[in-house]
Amino acid sequence: MHISKLLIPILKNNSSEATIKSHQLMLRVGMIKQSSAGIYSWLPLGLKIMKKIEQIVREEQNKIGAQEILMPTIQPSEIWKESGRYDDYGQEMLRIKDRQNRDMLYGPTNEELVTDIFRSLVKSYKSLPQLLYHIQWKFRDEMRPRFGIMRCREFYMKDAYSFDQNDEHALYSYNKFFLSYLKTFKRLELTAIPMAADTGPIGGNLSHEFIILAETGESKIFADKRIFELDYSDTSLEKKSLETLRKKYDQYYSVTDEKFNKKEFEKNVSEENRLITKGIEVGHIFYFGDKYSKPMNASVDLPGGMKQFVKMGSYGIGVSRLVAAIIEAKYDDKNEIMKWPLSVAPYDLALIPMYNKNDNSALEKANNIYLELKKNNIDVLIDDSDENFSSKIKKMNLIGCPFQIIIGKKSERDFFEFREINKNTENLSLNNIIEIITKQKKN
Amino acid sequence: MHISKLLIPILKNNSSEATIKSHQLMLRVGMIKQSSAGIYSWLPLGLKIMKKIEQIVREEQNKIGAQEILMPTIQPSEIWKESGRYDDYGQEMLRIKDRQNRDMLYGPTNEELVTDIFRSLVKSYKSLPQLLYHIQWKFRDEMRPRFGIMRCREFYMKDAYSFDQNDEHALYSYNKFFLSYLKTFKRLELTAIPMAADTGPIGGNLSHEFIILAETGESKIFADKRIFELDYSDTSLEKKSLETLRKKYDQYYSVTDEKFNKKEFEKNVSEENRLITKGIEVGHIFYFGDKYSKPMNASVDLPGGMKQFVKMGSYGIGVSRLVAAIIEAKYDDKNEIMKWPLSVAPYDLALIPMYNKNDNSALEKANNIYLELKKNNIDVLIDDSDENFSSKIKKMNLIGCPFQIIIGKKSERDFFEFREINKNTENLSLNNIIEIITKQKKN
Repeated sequence: MHISKLLIPILKNNSSEATIKSHQLMLRVGMIKQSSAGIYSWLPLGLKIMKKIEQIVREEQNKIGAQEILMPTIQPSEIWKESGRYDDYGQEMLRIKDRQNRDMLYGPTNEELVTDIFRSLVKSYKSLPQLLYHIQWKFRDEMRPRFGIMRCREFYMKDAYSFDQNDEHALYSYNKFFLSYLKTFKRLELTAIPMAADTGPIGGNLSHEFIILAETGESKIFADKRIFELDYSDTSLEKKSLETLRKKYDQYYSVTDEKFNKKEFEKNVSEENRLITKGIEVGHIFYFGDKYSKPMNASVDLPGGMKQFVKMGSYGIGVSRLVAAIIEAKYDDKNEIMKWPLSVAPYDLALIPMYNKNDNSALEKANNIYLELKKNNIDVLIDDSDENFSSKIKKMNLIGCPFQIIIGKKSERDFFEFREINKNTENLSLNNIIEIITKQKKN
Repeated sequence: MHISKLLIPILKNNSSEATIKSHQLMLRVGMIKQSSAGIYSWLPLGLKIMKKIEQIVREEQNKIGAQEILMPTIQPSEIWKESGRYDDYGQEMLRIKDRQNRDMLYGPTNEELVTDIFRSLVKSYKSLPQLLYHIQWKFRDEMRPRFGIMRCREFYMKDAYSFDQNDEHALYSYNKFFLSYLKTFKRLELTAIPMAADTGPIGGNLSHEFIILAETGESKIFADKRIFELDYSDTSLEKKSLETLRKKYDQYYSVTDEKFNKKEFEKNVSEENRLITKGIEVGHIFYFGDKYSKPMNASVDLPGGMKQFVKMGSYGIGVSRLVAAIIEAKYDDKNEIMKWPLSVAPYDLALIPMYNKNDNSALEKANNIYLELKKNNIDVLIDDSDENFSSKIKKMNLIGCPFQIIIGKKSERDFFEFREINKNTENLSLNNIIEIITKQKKN
């Protein structure tokens, strides 16, 4: 893509309305534009990144056998009255009257609607487990929307739901999502730690928040540092293997503030391992048994003819919020350098030809390289503007493509100034550059 | 995918609530489930098809240089007051009050919001043309939602907007979309004819509806038959070439009923070429100049410093409606056989092993073939249920994968009963089958 053709309104300075760095950067490089309080449009750069995140989330859901469906944004109030949450949910729920004067609402979450689908379609234990997910816009009418898309009103979320015939099976489903979440965040190059958490308006007695560390985070966390060294590489989707994984994580204290207990923390975590800090919630999983299936009468026939209310869990990932979370984790705001993980980068590489009024040989060279890279499936953003070199570099450092090629007058025929963003420049042949990027993309 | 693991609730008979064949089939094979009047959830089979249609629509937008953005579903009322449509739009607009008592609405279309984005980001004629599109849920509070997703309330739509500095440039943009629409519908194996149409609440003086013929369609059309023989194969994205294309189509009378004029029709179309029938609108394009840019003050600086209100057009494709439109065009409801175009088929091939209580060799064989096809990037739905053969065939004929392999006891070692749905069966080697499908997928 040539930057002259891209709708990418770059600001010289940070906007005064933005107080955290993800919000600043997203406005600065034109990833989003606010349309009303807590409601944003996504411009090409931001959308491209969000779509890549969405696809990674989707792939990891599919890998555990979850099926994608798509529920509407507007829900009938009746099912929320059945579950008992219609009155409880409070003002965060956007309530709507349609032209027939029926009570509708913009879904803040989908436990009721998915339970309604389940009860009308699935009748037998033989069809279990059912793992269903969708990726859809949600609305929560926050009192004070803030921090850009981090705490906004209309947001994009993956929410999954599991249906099982008993607690044991249901915990197996829960653990599949537990693993799947670790894998999803790893692919986004985030260290997201599962923390025992409160269940809030979703309900139930078992819940983990997946939290990445960030000073600007709104979640206060208390953890044993050693939990950050764990990984899931030896885990399979087998039941036992997942149980081992859960135990491995459960051995270290790690909770959000609602679950915090000072005595326990100090008893279980030696002083040198204590970590008290802030983080951003990027995922949240819940097990709540028959909290919804019972009032909504969602049951299956067991062998022998008995009926059993299905045992359910729900599993959310904030897809739009992850865009901001990655920025919080990766953006060096002192030096104004962003580096997107290659897996979600808007473009793999920034091609930066020096501009010279009387000599466009650098741009011509860059255009040739652009075509060559494109042939090799490397997605390139070329700065064909007439800005000076330092402002081009500054801009590309903010946009954050992981690699850069700089084309000056002195570029030799077959060697180019190449660098991974924020690292040293090397002179490499184009073939060599293609090899390096292709190899990293495969990882 | 094994059918036993797929949430695909097949009904034995047509549901009485469905009166047109797309609605019947979509309920019959579990593509959608109604959650309230005119609002549907998409189940795995339906969603998979819709996502493929969405991707084709997206690719064809990208090919003409349109950039993808994503505007929110909930819009502020202020911009609609600026354009003057807030009061005009009537009860089809879903109006909402948020917790701060602000007037919001669920976007039925996006002229205002995209104009608001444009005016705040684009200042100079040098940044023109801008072609922006998004694919997002819309809501129109229909008085009588009906025909399933064909006339529903919450629907999925691609809407694009063009911004140019004068009429001449703007018509060039209009013509790009005109070509792009012909290409999009061709890839969906639909013959969609552009018909001069009324502009309705969008406004302007130039508009085409793209209509496919269907007896169940709600649009009445009057056309010269010869327009169905035209094609765009010699057209490029050059201005002149597009003008030639437009002239080619304009030479034949073809209008929707609001534009119908009996005298003109009879004067311009000889009796044997007259076609009066019904169709389904799958796309609609509009040119309306400065209808929105003027009241909303969206202007650019021209060379010399003059300001000019931008000239705009808008371009819609009903992505969710297309799922139903393709069924209306392709479903043989007498024989209960659907055949999806390979480009959007939920699976390329249905693998149908005969079930035998005491001998599962057919299923084993099928599982091996399944793996082999998967290796070759052929997406297969295998019926591993214990239903009898004729009910399996019946089901797969409804689901409509374009190809079928039947595995009976008598299948010889290396040859299999293969057919394109609704055609004759041949005995072919697996390699041969893979070759046939792969070749067709490339087309």
